[in-house]
Amino acid sequence: MNAADHEAYRPRIDAALTVFTSDKRAELATVSPNLAGFVDAAVEFVSGGKRLRPLFCRAGWLISGGDPDDERFDHAAASLEWLHGSALAHDDLMDGSDTRRGRPSLHRAFEDLHRSEGMRGSAEGHGAAVAILLGDLMLSWVDEQFRRSQLPRVLEALPWLDRCKTEVAAGQYLDVLAQAHDNVGVSEAMLVVRFKSAKYTVERPLHLGAALAGAPASLLEALSNVAIPLGEAFQLRDDVLGLFGDPGVTGKPAGDDLREGKRTVLIARAAELGSDADRSRIDELLGSADGIEELTDLIERTGALAAVESDIERLERAAQDAMSTLPPGADDAIGPLLAKSTRRSH
Amino acid sequence: MNAADHEAYRPRIDAALTVFTSDKRAELATVSPNLAGFVDAAVEFVSGGKRLRPLFCRAGWLISGGDPDDERFDHAAASLEWLHGSALAHDDLMDGSDTRRGRPSLHRAFEDLHRSEGMRGSAEGHGAAVAILLGDLMLSWVDEQFRRSQLPRVLEALPWLDRCKTEVAAGQYLDVLAQAHDNVGVSEAMLVVRFKSAKYTVERPLHLGAALAGAPASLLEALSNVAIPLGEAFQLRDDVLGLFGDPGVTGKPAGDDLREGKRTVLIARAAELGSDADRSRIDELLGSADGIEELTDLIERTGALAAVESDIERLERAAQDAMSTLPPGADDAIGPLLAKSTRRSH
Repeated sequence: MNAADHEAYRPRIDAALTVFTSDKRAELATVSPNLAGFVDAAVEFVSGGKRLRPLFCRAGWLISGGDPDDERFDHAAASLEWLHGSALAHDDLMDGSDTRRGRPSLHRAFEDLHRSEGMRGSAEGHGAAVAILLGDLMLSWVDEQFRRSQLPRVLEALPWLDRCKTEVAAGQYLDVLAQAHDNVGVSEAMLVVRFKSAKYTVERPLHLGAALAGAPASLLEALSNVAIPLGEAFQLRDDVLGLFGDPGVTGKPAGDDLREGKRTVLIARAAELGSDADRSRIDELLGSADGIEELTDLIERTGALAAVESDIERLERAAQDAMSTLPPGADDAIGPLLAKSTRRSH
Repeated sequence: MNAADHEAYRPRIDAALTVFTSDKRAELATVSPNLAGFVDAAVEFVSGGKRLRPLFCRAGWLISGGDPDDERFDHAAASLEWLHGSALAHDDLMDGSDTRRGRPSLHRAFEDLHRSEGMRGSAEGHGAAVAILLGDLMLSWVDEQFRRSQLPRVLEALPWLDRCKTEVAAGQYLDVLAQAHDNVGVSEAMLVVRFKSAKYTVERPLHLGAALAGAPASLLEALSNVAIPLGEAFQLRDDVLGLFGDPGVTGKPAGDDLREGKRTVLIARAAELGSDADRSRIDELLGSADGIEELTDLIERTGALAAVESDIERLERAAQDAMSTLPPGADDAIGPLLAKSTRRSH
């Protein structure tokens, strides 16, 4: 399996999502035409995604001997798009983000609709309410789409989905807490990276696919040993690219994380390595629009950038070492997905 | 089964919830003490509820011949408390409600904590974010707690849980849409009543319990024929009590729905039966604090109150007629729960 195979699989994910939502839409449209629009908004929101989690799920399935042609599996893989859609809808609302994939974020889109149609009440409140409910709808669909696969091991695999869902909410909560505190340590910032990226995007999707294929506990553990350092490394690289990368390539203005007040590992390292004066400047400037240049300099000057670069190298080596414990071909299944995972390929 | 039996069952629901969350807490506390606090907030939020949906679920189980002593079933019934907790957390945030069961609502509690601990950033934004994430956490737990029962028919019963989850989000969306529009018709207002109350609180919980006990399709249909009119009747009575009931008994100031701008059936009927001038006044006064007395008078004067009272009678008769198609003893299982369902017993 190589990068081209991953591309070839994407239409099958879309097809599984479409079968699911066509049924939902037909069912709800008989109740009210407004509910057809509710389903359509969810469908449109998840369209055009990178399908990263379904693709990691498929990698776990193939590494564990799952049949590449078994279309039942596609429903299980596709279910992760609803979890991701829900997380993004709620995340954008919590962050106050105006856009998502170059379009207005959900809460902004429904806020705009409220204004343009001259509806009653607060447009902002309406946008927020619809984004909350669409996120809830998508989260409600995760298990249903997963079970639709009707694969024989669906009941044994569901506990991995349970873990994944709880961990997403837990990771988001740790992130929200970190943003509300000064002096977040490196280990706390790394915990957010582990939960929001390594476990959610890489480890659990691999586990889900592997569990559906009947992988033994030893293989699940070996997958964790690759997934965690690999997932952490690519999130750290993504953080670095977000600050020092070329906005023309990343698709986002440099320093967005600093502007949003994110307590990234780069910031935590800078606070750890810098002076008292540096720490005060971080607390003053983080989350404001005009401190980005100074904070970027500070992250380089304190040695935080170099330290994170060395963390990335260490994590990549650990992942590479662990890769040798996986069945032959695992590298080809997982490797191409990592390139898709950072901001470079947005 | 009578009212006393329902009371006797409540500790078993609490026990099932506690077993579930003790495991979750232990697992997440090893990651971070902050996550133990996250679980605790969810546990505390669902404590002290009326357990109405688990009790209807149990009624469906017993009516269909389920074993009253089978403790595995308790997990399935208890799962509905996570769905309800999630809906309430998000509902309070969308409505901007300050309190829930006499305590601060979740978003307000975490907003207050942000202020008292002098955290970074917006206190209001922090409270909203934590309420969104706790709602997501609880919604993530529904299927897991349900499957924990490990009853033999769990896979056959899960599609009823799927329907229930989708319908809750759909009902909330219709409610949000109704509040954003003038001149909501009686049939649209009744649709919200059907989805948010009759199906979510009565019909689907009955179906879930019945499906777990292996009830045939004919029994599920007979349960719907009782549940829908009964659920609609008690929601309408709740609306009437909320406006004309004694606040000392309902536990809420009279007219809360009007103050919050809810497009109840009472309001829709008043708009239907009233004059153009009445309709203008409704649009002007609904959602404001000082129009309650005038709107209450208008609802009586236009005949809307009498019309809704007659709707309630008609629905109760239909439910009573349908009750005769259920197995003997069904009335005793369902009846006492209805008294608990209105604001009288808050």
